[in-house]
Amino acid sequence: MSMSAARGVPGKRERLVVIGGDAAGMSAASQARRLKGPDELEIVAFERGHFTSFSACGIPYWVGGDVPERDQLIARTAEEHRARDIDLRMRTEVVEIDVAGGRVRARDVDSGAESWTSYDKLVIATGARPIRPDMPGVDAPGVHGVQTLDDGQALLDTLAHTRGRRAVVVGAGYIGVEMAEALINRGYEVTVVNRGSEPMSTLDPDMGRLVHEAMEGLGITMVDDAEVTKILTGGDGRVRAVATEDAEYPADVVVLGIGVHPETALARAAGLPLGEHGGLLTDLAMRVRGHENIWAGGDCVEVLDLVSGSERHVPLGTHANKHGQIIGTNAAGGYATFPGVVGTAVSKVCDLEIARTGLREKDARRAGLQYVTATIESTSRAGYYPGAETMTVKLLAERRTGRLLGAQIVGREGAGKRVDVAAVALTAGMTVEQMTSLDLGYAPPFSPVWDPVLVAARKATKAVMSATS
Amino acid sequence: MSMSAARGVPGKRERLVVIGGDAAGMSAASQARRLKGPDELEIVAFERGHFTSFSACGIPYWVGGDVPERDQLIARTAEEHRARDIDLRMRTEVVEIDVAGGRVRARDVDSGAESWTSYDKLVIATGARPIRPDMPGVDAPGVHGVQTLDDGQALLDTLAHTRGRRAVVVGAGYIGVEMAEALINRGYEVTVVNRGSEPMSTLDPDMGRLVHEAMEGLGITMVDDAEVTKILTGGDGRVRAVATEDAEYPADVVVLGIGVHPETALARAAGLPLGEHGGLLTDLAMRVRGHENIWAGGDCVEVLDLVSGSERHVPLGTHANKHGQIIGTNAAGGYATFPGVVGTAVSKVCDLEIARTGLREKDARRAGLQYVTATIESTSRAGYYPGAETMTVKLLAERRTGRLLGAQIVGREGAGKRVDVAAVALTAGMTVEQMTSLDLGYAPPFSPVWDPVLVAARKATKAVMSATS
Repeated sequence: MSMSAARGVPGKRERLVVIGGDAAGMSAASQARRLKGPDELEIVAFERGHFTSFSACGIPYWVGGDVPERDQLIARTAEEHRARDIDLRMRTEVVEIDVAGGRVRARDVDSGAESWTSYDKLVIATGARPIRPDMPGVDAPGVHGVQTLDDGQALLDTLAHTRGRRAVVVGAGYIGVEMAEALINRGYEVTVVNRGSEPMSTLDPDMGRLVHEAMEGLGITMVDDAEVTKILTGGDGRVRAVATEDAEYPADVVVLGIGVHPETALARAAGLPLGEHGGLLTDLAMRVRGHENIWAGGDCVEVLDLVSGSERHVPLGTHANKHGQIIGTNAAGGYATFPGVVGTAVSKVCDLEIARTGLREKDARRAGLQYVTATIESTSRAGYYPGAETMTVKLLAERRTGRLLGAQIVGREGAGKRVDVAAVALTAGMTVEQMTSLDLGYAPPFSPVWDPVLVAARKATKAVMSATS
Repeated sequence: MSMSAARGVPGKRERLVVIGGDAAGMSAASQARRLKGPDELEIVAFERGHFTSFSACGIPYWVGGDVPERDQLIARTAEEHRARDIDLRMRTEVVEIDVAGGRVRARDVDSGAESWTSYDKLVIATGARPIRPDMPGVDAPGVHGVQTLDDGQALLDTLAHTRGRRAVVVGAGYIGVEMAEALINRGYEVTVVNRGSEPMSTLDPDMGRLVHEAMEGLGITMVDDAEVTKILTGGDGRVRAVATEDAEYPADVVVLGIGVHPETALARAAGLPLGEHGGLLTDLAMRVRGHENIWAGGDCVEVLDLVSGSERHVPLGTHANKHGQIIGTNAAGGYATFPGVVGTAVSKVCDLEIARTGLREKDARRAGLQYVTATIESTSRAGYYPGAETMTVKLLAERRTGRLLGAQIVGREGAGKRVDVAAVALTAGMTVEQMTSLDLGYAPPFSPVWDPVLVAARKATKAVMSATS
């Protein structure tokens, strides 16, 4: 990300239109407003939902009870945005982008009334929509997604009115495992049904296996290699079980945590360029390719993966916020870029921490990279210090060059954020051998004398040397 | 650190002599043994003390009761080393190095008997000695250093037999603050007397102030700007108070935590090159400069500071272990290097975490660098997530280039190890602007959507832009 001061075009008041009032869109609007006052730049933002600038990542913790109040997840209300001279129109859905005409058609969700709004500059931040499998029963009462605050409230309402305590979570990615924790915290017996061979397919299967075992240790029933074929309902029409080809899992409540797709129907209809994952394609300034005055960011775009060199869809709030900053700076006439991602993610299930960055083995193969791996076990603190917890660290390094390609960590307290060391090393293009001499913080309450990441780097260095032939 | 496989010189059995049986020395011996068997390489190690390969960094936690048993701090016993064909001679002090003759003179500490041992290769790992101020009363019963396991045992004996509960810690560096925690854990009223303007002089004073305030909040009496002039004893000869020019602080026990000097008397007498901090000077392969067959590492050497470009003395177990690995590899005919340090350190006092890396403001000035600073407050987790704790992050960036020069963090749980992100960024020579787009792990239990280090990088980027004129 690079920034420079905004340059004004004196005399003309421009209009910036933002589609989507969540992280990317409202960060863009806020940053543009910071750089240009309302006399220079009018900002109009359209949001079809009831809420703006909320933390979707926080929903599992609200559902689980760690976050008592919905409104704690709202970073900034519509009123707060309006107080900063952003003309935010809630419950208003943009239904068409007229690129040639430089205007958008918006519909009032409640009244159905439509009108056109012209723009000088446009920001597309339409986010993502949850994958909702097309199968019998998926719309039955008691089956819930967890994408929006309304979804979260509906799930909480179901939990409050359901006597049975059996929950099935469909999907074992980060939303699935976080929802498993939430439902355990609410006192449910939780079954996670997952079509992959192990949970957390964002990890290699050997590391996913550790997650499987740890989740079973938490009392969660793990069903792998199982495709859900339908959702069975009872006489009252409510969900009663989740069915796979081989089995049925009784359920009083079902949570769908299967993932999301970029929400780009509008962009597609407008002829804007989409990538192979269905997300908008932008340049490094987050401008939609080929369109000088249209930017896009957040869950509706594809981002450059700096390790593989190809585009990925990585729907995460942290990227959406960064995109918003970049877009707001550029749309206000400044200069900023987003170089790409290395693919870092952390999640937790109760006291289990799961982290990854960079490429998995299959990503490396797909990118044409040959690699070695090294997996080690170590502890979060000096072995003799109270609370030292075991963690497993796996590194991938390129064959011959030894360049770090990826890291995966599964452990307890102190495991997850250690992935940041690998994320920075990846960004810098370090070799695993260079990593062995990283000057990381050491004291017995914080780390063994060799930090687990360094122990893994040493083993990976040996693997690179052995494979150099 | 780079490594390559060891190359043997066939036919000749060489002798490697190691002076000092702690982290650097025994890591070197063990690594050399891993690469060369006893038929190729004889390894003789001399240790003047009672223990080998112990964690000096763990002593405060043993004294404080977090680590119940002394032997938990011993990573490897003398017997374990001997079982790997290392001829480890305990209670045997090397009293002379005859460089020209390729031999060392060793004395049995108990009997006084002396003998010469010749070497083909020599490792000097004599460590550091605690600074013990030359003042009246410093040797009185009840005044303790905490450098060795014997020191720790002596202090524990004093604590067990002392009825009074008033402890004075002299010095407020990392040993001082860790000992303050240990004594609080033992139920003492603790006063820390410190000649600096704030505790933790490894931080800038503005960050040290936060440590001062937090330690007072923990019930510790903090006395800054106070040079201890003498230690007062009672009628029984035991310590009764610590005196400064202005005041007396009653004490039933006194702990000296003033720091250490490189232990290089032997090396100096042998004419080996020492730096301005009194430590041995080595090349990047940890070879003593100008001596093909002598290596040195651990607390007795100076290391290259990669940020300032000059040598520093950084006595830390984590470096000593790395040095040992490098030396063992090279002494066994392999190839490995230690590039230097960026100066990372973490410590804690009860629940307060303190971390630093790179240059302080005064270090930057001394290195001829112009800089800007940025200090921010943020939280360890999403603000709405339970257990989110405040932390303060300060960054230094070079004027004009924006290159990161240093980072300091003071906070609670989750603060300390965040310094690793800055440590890796420093090693990679990143600018604070490059840091703003680092792909760090985000989920509400682990971080706000903008990690505190990124928030600080954004503010530092603005400071660099404002100062670019």
